[in-house]
Amino acid sequence: MIDQIIQSISPIDRKIMEETQERLDNLTKPLGSLGRLEELARQICGITGEKDPVLANKVIFTLAADHGVTDEGVSAYPKEVTAQMVYNFLNGGAGINVLAKQAGARVVVVDIGVSSDLKPCAGLMIKKIGHGTKNMARGRAMTREEAEDSIRAGIDIFAEIFKQGIDIVGTGEMGIGNTTAASAITACLTGKAVEEVTGRGAGLDGPGLKNKIAVIKKAIAINKPDTRDPIDVLSKVGGFEIGGLAGIILAASAKKIPVLIDGFISGSAALIAYKIEPKTKEYMIAAHCSVESGHKVILEQVGLKPLLDLGLRLGEGTGAALAMRLADASIAVLTQMATFDGAKVSKKDK
Amino acid sequence: MIDQIIQSISPIDRKIMEETQERLDNLTKPLGSLGRLEELARQICGITGEKDPVLANKVIFTLAADHGVTDEGVSAYPKEVTAQMVYNFLNGGAGINVLAKQAGARVVVVDIGVSSDLKPCAGLMIKKIGHGTKNMARGRAMTREEAEDSIRAGIDIFAEIFKQGIDIVGTGEMGIGNTTAASAITACLTGKAVEEVTGRGAGLDGPGLKNKIAVIKKAIAINKPDTRDPIDVLSKVGGFEIGGLAGIILAASAKKIPVLIDGFISGSAALIAYKIEPKTKEYMIAAHCSVESGHKVILEQVGLKPLLDLGLRLGEGTGAALAMRLADASIAVLTQMATFDGAKVSKKDK
Repeated sequence: MIDQIIQSISPIDRKIMEETQERLDNLTKPLGSLGRLEELARQICGITGEKDPVLANKVIFTLAADHGVTDEGVSAYPKEVTAQMVYNFLNGGAGINVLAKQAGARVVVVDIGVSSDLKPCAGLMIKKIGHGTKNMARGRAMTREEAEDSIRAGIDIFAEIFKQGIDIVGTGEMGIGNTTAASAITACLTGKAVEEVTGRGAGLDGPGLKNKIAVIKKAIAINKPDTRDPIDVLSKVGGFEIGGLAGIILAASAKKIPVLIDGFISGSAALIAYKIEPKTKEYMIAAHCSVESGHKVILEQVGLKPLLDLGLRLGEGTGAALAMRLADASIAVLTQMATFDGAKVSKKDK
Repeated sequence: MIDQIIQSISPIDRKIMEETQERLDNLTKPLGSLGRLEELARQICGITGEKDPVLANKVIFTLAADHGVTDEGVSAYPKEVTAQMVYNFLNGGAGINVLAKQAGARVVVVDIGVSSDLKPCAGLMIKKIGHGTKNMARGRAMTREEAEDSIRAGIDIFAEIFKQGIDIVGTGEMGIGNTTAASAITACLTGKAVEEVTGRGAGLDGPGLKNKIAVIKKAIAINKPDTRDPIDVLSKVGGFEIGGLAGIILAASAKKIPVLIDGFISGSAALIAYKIEPKTKEYMIAAHCSVESGHKVILEQVGLKPLLDLGLRLGEGTGAALAMRLADASIAVLTQMATFDGAKVSKKDK
């Protein structure tokens, strides 16, 4: 099933991108003067294959899971916060709820591996791969099968909501301890030193950060992930929500849907998706650059230029939600501005 | 009248800013994790003096004027484009119309000095100081009285619309040749070399840029602006729209209204307002960083950190319109997110 999705990912439509740029060049503005908005319009047209793309149905997928590595004291917040925040998402009180509402986006909340059993309720999708991962500092975080299951779960989640209509997607997550997993993945898949790709997460102090770095190094030393095999890396030092988001990115690419990649955790999922199938990169839009140092390393490795740089480090999909407005703006410019001829405005004379 | 406005500008409310940060710190997110959005919420509360500011009435002021210096071949576009673009604004076909609509903002279009006489029509405010400035390469761009009149016109324009309701303002402009004026002002008021603060404007080629730099140097050499006197600088090498925007910034500061400063031209107006009264800085929000090299110099001089960096160089207020959504988002976060206690989410444990 994963192979089938990978095989259905095609390059984006370069011809429509060229036509889009020609059209942008005829709008009443100096050539190229809307910068990244023009690039964004071009990319969205290329992804969707549409000359006049409509971004009506916006969805943020916020996947929640727990991490056994929290036993090593790698997070500033207690582990039970993951489940508590899921209820906060369902009650509409979290950052992602507020910012998604602002962006006109729906938030799809998924339990893909929270350690406690959540009460089934309206709005909560349950696709549990396990009750949290195992402690990667003492053995692999999950089996290879679980890693593949998490990716397949992401593909399923996307397919289920796609039936209801999706024009653009944002990735998001919640999981106490998940910057530890994201840093470990980043170190393995980019070859950078653990110190370079590890940050304070939700708010570690100096000694806490030192411990986190030591834990990641230990996890890599014990599990010896095969750095040429992204699924091996995911299974040994990853997380269920990261696998799920990689699956969503693969599935969205296969369906020609633009994907706004949120921050560092989403970035680690994007890195896995990219390593599985490099063509996914063309479907990715980097929403923002996180404060976490590893995120910049991922963006450089995949070759993505973030739209926003607002010092965010909340996750949940909040950066993706903010960037959705820019996607809207880019398509509004393309489809609503007057042309030089139409508005009787003189063109450049030199 | 200008003095009266200046005297009514008070520092922003630091007590409310502290209370706002305390409130932000109790919302269900890691401390400080919404970065610039938190700063923005804090600043908007400090400016307005409101704990729960409402940003319902959004206005972009787009001031149009011509520049005699276009006789020197400093722009890639013919001079008549200024008037043509005013009609485009009035017909809703320009970039600012599309992006203001996206942001839920009204565009107020003002002829403050277009060289031709525009047909009076609905939506066009006429506050003409002159039929374009004079060619600054051959003498001063305007008299001191005209410079003061342009600032007073800005104050009037703001007051007129303020009566109809304004909660947040964005600055914008249109004027073929106005990057030449903005570069000249920036060189005079920051002490930087003309080469460092002069760019390609709407699209000059290499020889065009060289000529533009020579023209600005000549204008400064001939007019000898008093660099300690911002109004002298405005009168000798400025523009009517730049004076008008400086007036709007002063008037908005006096009325405790946040001002989103757009790009380079708006930045040069902000620099003049700041030199007239440094307290205006606290009311300014730098919407974005323009491609024009002089803009970064202005932002550093005034001490403003831009919200967006999207390679924009269109002007009209387009960057300000994009940033309005971030202002909305910051206030939505402040006023709509759940608290740790309210949502029963555990706080940081180390």
